[in-house]
Amino acid sequence: MTYCVAIRLTTGLVLLADTRTNAGVDNISKYRKLFTWTEPGERSVALMTAGNLAITQAVVSLLQEPIDNPGSNAESVLTAPTLFRVAELVGDAMREVQSRYGPGLAATGESATSSIVVAGQRAGGQVRLFLVYSAGNFIEATDDTSFFQIGEHKYGKPILDRVITPDTSLEDAKTAALLSMDSTLRSNLTVGMPLDLAVLPADSFAFSELRRIEPEDPHFHALSHAWSELMREAFVQARQQAQAEIQNGRKDGGQQMLG
Amino acid sequence: MTYCVAIRLTTGLVLLADTRTNAGVDNISKYRKLFTWTEPGERSVALMTAGNLAITQAVVSLLQEPIDNPGSNAESVLTAPTLFRVAELVGDAMREVQSRYGPGLAATGESATSSIVVAGQRAGGQVRLFLVYSAGNFIEATDDTSFFQIGEHKYGKPILDRVITPDTSLEDAKTAALLSMDSTLRSNLTVGMPLDLAVLPADSFAFSELRRIEPEDPHFHALSHAWSELMREAFVQARQQAQAEIQNGRKDGGQQMLG
Repeated sequence: MTYCVAIRLTTGLVLLADTRTNAGVDNISKYRKLFTWTEPGERSVALMTAGNLAITQAVVSLLQEPIDNPGSNAESVLTAPTLFRVAELVGDAMREVQSRYGPGLAATGESATSSIVVAGQRAGGQVRLFLVYSAGNFIEATDDTSFFQIGEHKYGKPILDRVITPDTSLEDAKTAALLSMDSTLRSNLTVGMPLDLAVLPADSFAFSELRRIEPEDPHFHALSHAWSELMREAFVQARQQAQAEIQNGRKDGGQQMLG
Repeated sequence: MTYCVAIRLTTGLVLLADTRTNAGVDNISKYRKLFTWTEPGERSVALMTAGNLAITQAVVSLLQEPIDNPGSNAESVLTAPTLFRVAELVGDAMREVQSRYGPGLAATGESATSSIVVAGQRAGGQVRLFLVYSAGNFIEATDDTSFFQIGEHKYGKPILDRVITPDTSLEDAKTAALLSMDSTLRSNLTVGMPLDLAVLPADSFAFSELRRIEPEDPHFHALSHAWSELMREAFVQARQQAQAEIQNGRKDGGQQMLG
């Protein structure tokens, strides 16, 4: 399985992916699921992948080909005129790979289902975030829905639902993504460290952070530990606040007029 | 879908169930999923159900029959010598119902999958918590695994993983169950209010709380609101604490011996 989360804010993008893949529960490997391309000062593009690994690797390889062979003049994620067109290129590659392997996978009862997050910004355009499905069609994140999750999305959704709005700061969104991942890592064995993190501030056309977070990363450990402690304190505090609110409510409701 | 959570502590049991059922996404109803029986001073038993509603209703009806007809002398959840035997009775009823309807459901491609939480205590025994599967077999909660969840369990698992131990107080466990439910309600439409709550303190053989929490319940609203606020504060605080911890670590590591 996989867990990837992508958050689109007015101030930029935060992307976080795990690296665990598994064939059944007894065959676990480590693969990168976050891929980035940058044309300095002009654009930065990132993909995150989930689903059938052979499918998503083939899609990424197809997208890499015109970049490795610039003489071919084929359109690439670095030359496409818009981010919408980048998402179309990813969808086209997905359709090509699905049409090649889909029938064979269906015949053996294996899943070809895959999904790919496409995110980035080009000079002259906005920060944009897309989710490409197995059929190659895609949806775009809007101010109403500011984040996409692929893979094991349920454990880490509550904190995103509570915290993320388009106006959340990049720093807060990074923390929320890390804590959303932490919740998922703790509760599901098919999502695993290390993690890959990318932060793309709006109008910078360069990733301000692009790094691997290893299992022993002291900051991630400290954040995870602090969060656990704060959660434990918060839920006692939540109960006390709720009781206080109810008692004040009763007092207000029951207060007699005096004259 | 459904979300039920059952927590077994040294000090007793906390059970919380939603009431939403759905056939597809366009046929939503409200059904009780928490059922209790008490023989005052001798035992209290509770069930929570998930899965195919016709199956679980039939199981509960079968279990109710010997209680409604005490003359039959058939063994019931109120007369079984142990809680283990109560779980066996539930499993037997499950097997009977599954063998009656399972083949027909399989023939039409419908799911017969169901699961039932069995919890309670009898005089002379411990507080016990079981999870009965569709096949009628069951597992028991131990100190290593102090809670069971059935239905839409993923959204609400992280807070339980972080907070619940066998030594958690009943009051804290109740709060954790309500917040686990709140996270699930916010993130998944197939889980819905009202809720049914049962609290059984150890060695009391009577539920100290057994009540329905309606959508407009002011305490649940206040708790949910306080939790959202505290989560938002906590994740900023978690980041700050993590940064401070890292900086202190660096300082400690880099400090020179002076003599």
